Amino acid sequence: MEREPTRVMVAVNESTIKGNPHPSISSKRAFEWTLEKMVRSNTSDFKILLLHVHVVDEDGFDEVDSIYASPDDFRESNKSKGLHLLEFFVRKCHEIGVSCEAWIKKGDPKDVICQEVSRVRPDLLVLGSRGLGRFQKVFVGTVSGFCVKHAECPVLTIKRNSDETPSDPADD
Amino acid sequence: MEREPTRVMVAVNESTIKGNPHPSISSKRAFEWTLEKMVRSNTSDFKILLLHVHVVDEDGFDEVDSIYASPDDFRESNKSKGLHLLEFFVRKCHEIGVSCEAWIKKGDPKDVICQEVSRVRPDLLVLGSRGLGRFQKVFVGTVSGFCVKHAECPVLTIKRNSDETPSDPADD
Repeated sequence: MEREPTRVMVAVNESTIKGNPHPSISSKRAFEWTLEKMVRSNTSDFKILLLHVHVVDEDGFDEVDSIYASPDDFRESNKSKGLHLLEFFVRKCHEIGVSCEAWIKKGDPKDVICQEVSRVRPDLLVLGSRGLGRFQKVFVGTVSGFCVKHAECPVLTIKRNSDETPSDPADD
Repeated sequence: MEREPTRVMVAVNESTIKGNPHPSISSKRAFEWTLEKMVRSNTSDFKILLLHVHVVDEDGFDEVDSIYASPDDFRESNKSKGLHLLEFFVRKCHEIGVSCEAWIKKGDPKDVICQEVSRVRPDLLVLGSRGLGRFQKVFVGTVSGFCVKHAECPVLTIKRNSDETPSDPADD
C-alpha cells in the first residue's frame, strides 16, 4: 500500500446567501464528507489542499499566491472574506490533525480549478454542488460539470443534502 | 469519527475490446484507484459494494439477484462472463482484506446504477469513465454523466490514464 499521503484538493467558496459570512453550504458539506467518510481517523494517510478561487471584481485583491497551513498564519493580516473562508477550513483540519495547505487564486473558478489541478497534481479533486430535492431532477452547477469533464484527476462531486437547500435553490 | 465502515459502491463492466475477457480498462482503473488512494491500508474502515449491470440481450440470463462475497461463492456455478467479472474484483478485495459484496442486475446501466444507489444507500458511488488524451477535450460517457447528476449519493468519476486508451477510444 501507498506510503505517501493521498492528496485531496477541495475547492471551497463563500456563501451567496445575503448576510451569511460563512462557506457555501455545498463546499462545507463536501469538506465535511471528505473528513468523515474518506479520511476518517486515518489522518496521516491524507493531505487536504484547500483552493479558493476569488472571482475578480476590480477591488485590488492582494492575498493571492500566499499559502496558509496553520491557524496562526491568519493572525496578523487584515483579513478579507476569502481569508476568513480559508481560516474556517484550515482550523477544522488542525482540530482533527490532518495536514493541509490552503491558497487563493483569482479568475474564473472552473478554469482556475482545472489549471490548479494540472499544476499541483492532486490525487483527487472534491467539489460541492447544489442540487434540488430528492424527488426532483438534480441540477449540477457548471463548475462541477466542467471539472468532471476537464480536470486531469479523479473528481468527487458531492451534492447538498436536500434539507440544507435554501429557499432559493440557486443560492448556496 | 465514524465507526461504521464507509460503504463504497463501484460499478464495474466488461471490456468491449474484441477477445478481451477482462474488466473494462476504466472500471479496473476506478477499482484500483479506490483501493490504493482511498482504502489504502485501512481495510476495516471500508466496505466495497460491486455492482455489475448486465445489458439484457434475450439470452436467458439467470445469475441476477444472487450475492457473491467470497471467491468460494463462484466455484460451483457454470460461470457466465458477468460472473467471471465479479470474481475478478471479489478476489482482489479478499487478497487485500477489505470486505465486499458483489451482485448483478440487468437493465440499462445508468438507470439501474441510480436505482441501486437509492436502494442500497452507499456513502459513495465510484465510476470509471473513458477519456481522451491529456491535451484533447475529455469525453465523459453518458453513464457517468447521468449518474453524477442523478445518483442520490456523492459520485467519484475516474478517467482512464491516457496511456491506457485503446486504438479506438470508444473501446474500453
